[in-house]
Amino acid sequence: MPTDKTQIAQVVASLEAELNRLKHEITTMGVADQVPAATETITVADYILERLKQLNVTDYVEAHPTIQWASNCNELNASYAADGYARVKEGSIGVLLTTFGVGELSAANGIAGSFSEHVPVLHLVGVPSTIQQKTKPMLHHTLGDGRFDAYHKAFQEFVISHGSLTDKVTAAAEIDRVLTECVVKARPAYLMLPTDLVHVQIPKTRLLTPLNTEPPANNADIEGFVLDEIMNLIEKADRDVVILVDACTIRHGVRKEVNELVHKTKFPVYAAPMGKTAVSETYERYGGIYVGTISSPEVKEKVENANLILAIGGVKSDFNTGNFTYHIDTHRVIELHSDNTVVQFASFPGIGMKHLLPKLTARLETLKGDAQQIEVPRFTHPVPQEDNETISHSWLWPRVGQFFKPGDVVVAETGTSSFGVLDVPFPDGAIFISQILWGSIGYSVGSTLGAAIAARDIGLNRTILFVGDGSIQLTVQELSVMMHVGVKPIIFLLNNSGYTIERYLHGKHAKYNDITNWKWTSLLTAFGGTEGETCQSYTVKTKSELSKLLDDETFARADKIQLVEMLMPMHDAPRALRVQAELSGLTNKYTA
Amino acid sequence: MPTDKTQIAQVVASLEAELNRLKHEITTMGVADQVPAATETITVADYILERLKQLNVTDYVEAHPTIQWASNCNELNASYAADGYARVKEGSIGVLLTTFGVGELSAANGIAGSFSEHVPVLHLVGVPSTIQQKTKPMLHHTLGDGRFDAYHKAFQEFVISHGSLTDKVTAAAEIDRVLTECVVKARPAYLMLPTDLVHVQIPKTRLLTPLNTEPPANNADIEGFVLDEIMNLIEKADRDVVILVDACTIRHGVRKEVNELVHKTKFPVYAAPMGKTAVSETYERYGGIYVGTISSPEVKEKVENANLILAIGGVKSDFNTGNFTYHIDTHRVIELHSDNTVVQFASFPGIGMKHLLPKLTARLETLKGDAQQIEVPRFTHPVPQEDNETISHSWLWPRVGQFFKPGDVVVAETGTSSFGVLDVPFPDGAIFISQILWGSIGYSVGSTLGAAIAARDIGLNRTILFVGDGSIQLTVQELSVMMHVGVKPIIFLLNNSGYTIERYLHGKHAKYNDITNWKWTSLLTAFGGTEGETCQSYTVKTKSELSKLLDDETFARADKIQLVEMLMPMHDAPRALRVQAELSGLTNKYTA
Repeated sequence: MPTDKTQIAQVVASLEAELNRLKHEITTMGVADQVPAATETITVADYILERLKQLNVTDYVEAHPTIQWASNCNELNASYAADGYARVKEGSIGVLLTTFGVGELSAANGIAGSFSEHVPVLHLVGVPSTIQQKTKPMLHHTLGDGRFDAYHKAFQEFVISHGSLTDKVTAAAEIDRVLTECVVKARPAYLMLPTDLVHVQIPKTRLLTPLNTEPPANNADIEGFVLDEIMNLIEKADRDVVILVDACTIRHGVRKEVNELVHKTKFPVYAAPMGKTAVSETYERYGGIYVGTISSPEVKEKVENANLILAIGGVKSDFNTGNFTYHIDTHRVIELHSDNTVVQFASFPGIGMKHLLPKLTARLETLKGDAQQIEVPRFTHPVPQEDNETISHSWLWPRVGQFFKPGDVVVAETGTSSFGVLDVPFPDGAIFISQILWGSIGYSVGSTLGAAIAARDIGLNRTILFVGDGSIQLTVQELSVMMHVGVKPIIFLLNNSGYTIERYLHGKHAKYNDITNWKWTSLLTAFGGTEGETCQSYTVKTKSELSKLLDDETFARADKIQLVEMLMPMHDAPRALRVQAELSGLTNKYTA
Repeated sequence: MPTDKTQIAQVVASLEAELNRLKHEITTMGVADQVPAATETITVADYILERLKQLNVTDYVEAHPTIQWASNCNELNASYAADGYARVKEGSIGVLLTTFGVGELSAANGIAGSFSEHVPVLHLVGVPSTIQQKTKPMLHHTLGDGRFDAYHKAFQEFVISHGSLTDKVTAAAEIDRVLTECVVKARPAYLMLPTDLVHVQIPKTRLLTPLNTEPPANNADIEGFVLDEIMNLIEKADRDVVILVDACTIRHGVRKEVNELVHKTKFPVYAAPMGKTAVSETYERYGGIYVGTISSPEVKEKVENANLILAIGGVKSDFNTGNFTYHIDTHRVIELHSDNTVVQFASFPGIGMKHLLPKLTARLETLKGDAQQIEVPRFTHPVPQEDNETISHSWLWPRVGQFFKPGDVVVAETGTSSFGVLDVPFPDGAIFISQILWGSIGYSVGSTLGAAIAARDIGLNRTILFVGDGSIQLTVQELSVMMHVGVKPIIFLLNNSGYTIERYLHGKHAKYNDITNWKWTSLLTAFGGTEGETCQSYTVKTKSELSKLLDDETFARADKIQLVEMLMPMHDAPRALRVQAELSGLTNKYTA
């Protein structure tokens, strides 16, 4: 295709992008000038809470009429919970409140994870007064050398926007700037709130205009140009197109637009692991999970042999691509992203999918007839017949798949569980949560707390967690918080005596992959639950025992928090994990 | 005193200091040139382990003959354990091994705490191969945007030295540089170990010369000048001198030198909270804890009315000074620090106490006669007679004080416990561990694990932890690791239903200071212990019950891990905490 034309387009696009970004910023920042100064005031703290309320955050700080406090056992768990909350409550954000130094640093891993996985979380930090930040006394929680800005500096590596409130004149605009970037770019933001500003009164004026959380507009000329390029390619490809949805479809709020596209055009659609449930897995034109070499053979064949791939919101990480084993030539790929578009080798910065998709759908609708001809093998995973009672991974995952219901929120710990559920079709409206890129062990437990609270808020169904006996130990105390706030997840605990994924990556028999075996069924009561009343624990050793439990209506109703210890063989693992570990083990092996 | 003379001295001192630092560095770095290249090689991993062994680190990684692996439930707890280990094993260091991104960031709070409190901890991070760091694939545990150096950058805010191994030629020197600064400056160091260098062979040569862990030498002229200045002041002060020992006496390894000073000169000696046990609290010339306004009246009177204060290793933080309420005029103060000396208003950079102290002792010995005349009220804290059975703080602390034995390691959680034990005299050779400056809630539990392992190594007595029901929830899973590695601390759990210190600082009845009440006595068994065999739990509600337990020889022998839940009234607190919270609450109150 014409390179010069493209190059010009790129330059223009970059300029347009920046122009739009500024226009966008102004819509929020400029408000104060447009509206007559109001006499009505509000405290800085309440200003923040009002903005959060406008963003549909309904769980957070006590002493606010509509926002509830969810207290965690520690800050890392809290950051995981905020992340899980944001993933379930799409369009809203998660909020984490910590103290200076000791608190905020404990959350660093969780915040960096939200950055890595495109999850909007506001990290509010209560810091010393603006005066103390200048005079620098040797306060507790400081490094003892007067560097009051050290934590802020460190966090700049892991957030998309950050700020420190310094006075009442700029506070409102600063809060709005930080919050807007957090939502628009779907990544964490960091905001320092000094003790002496918390209760200071500021004008309510800016609150009259909600934050502009829409992505910036695309330049019409370039957008049109890109659409033409895409249509040309599709024609050249004999309309043999496959749509591949991935993480950012969900994270950057284009679920609706993408579903319009696939339903109106009828092109076959597949999902990368991080895109699982972006499109309903019961939709007749949905073919399942594509993950390079790890894909099931028929999926691999269909995706890699299509003449053209329309990749939406792609995140090409190792575990999301079968360790970089996409066998798709760039000539055959169109990539739509939140803030740019790539057609074959040409990138178009500033052309984001949110505004592009509806126009693309309108143009492609006409090709429905041909698209419908392309055959899509149904995505199913029948329960295998195994003539033994061992709870094997090959049997477990399809079996629990039958247990899932529409609107369930399924959280899978990185590793065994996240690979295990990949092959299982989810019911319509089910949500899948896992850290496939960041992969922080223990994340799923904290995330389950936030996810369950969000699910309760928006009337989703059950929250179901799959976690190993190794992983849950990192964040186990959050079980007590779940009971404290009254959410009722079902926790499937895979007890296979250790860090299975690590054994597969390296150290199959290494001592450091051993862990103490806990009395799992007495955990909930130790953490304050009352067995049979506020909590219920089970141990299952056989297929029959687990099946019986899954078929039990009382159990399935999930009217109290439930923990199911499943005894499984130490060295068994889901198919996908075995393959991935083999590929990944080779990459990470300890040789030059 | 003559300022010009001082200014010259300062300039010279700065230059000398840098010169000495370089000389010092060379003694380690230069080795390779002095010794003929050896043919014998060793892997990078084993090189590090050998260096650690030379530093007397005996608990660490499996697959090494003399170093044992202590696996933790999570990285924050591991960083606390490494800190506790280093505090007990003076002269050695703590070692923390984590993985890239997810692991290391979880430890950020612990590492920053070690920096703040002057504790030498090596943070070894297993990172992607040197090739991957250049090609930047989107690996799990990355931020997804190719910034492989983001974590390293963030950690630079919290460590005294840092490095990333890049090739086998520079590896050994880099390891030595990072380790030497860690030990000499008694603060954490950060070292990235890429997967492809772990097993690479490098020459053993440098291992023939142990690391130079001594602080740089002082310039003789300036040192002599400083000694004269000090002697003049002491004469002017009519030899009415009081010695005040603080944190860095312990952290910077001058415990021996300071004890020589106090025993040979007989000057009265007092300790700041962070200096508790730097000098034996049974020594007849030791008067107790000085903490500004919070001090007991007689201590305050003695210290603040002395004509001259010789302050050794001082850390003037809020909680270590009674919220900055020292009433001592700078004209009456001489400060000795690890890398500088301050006489009244004159500072002498590069004149460190390690080399200065023996010379000062020699000169002061002659004044012993006069020093002995200064009266020192005995530091005692009798158990009060209270005509009720409530376990009050006023009764609890002196009572457990009677339970302490020589060589016990006492770990006190920040807040209620750390303030509580302050007034209690410790037996000879007992070690006190608490985070009085950093103050991270939950630290004491992880620290107890490391402290107990170190205590076992060097043949100390029992490890005793005091922690509240709120604080233990942050890091509770480490109890399972204690049982896993077979250490047997006695854990006194103060159950007063919530975050007492926070209630005192703000929010006395705030919901966010409430916590779920756990079944404390079933925790150890839930975490894998066997009641009566590997662990034992108790609940005591009255003074009599607790006294009976403390007098029980089996209990006192501590031959298994023991947890004692003590039911205490919600709003009671130790004297020192009540005063401190009042002072501190005023400072932190939410107003401009």
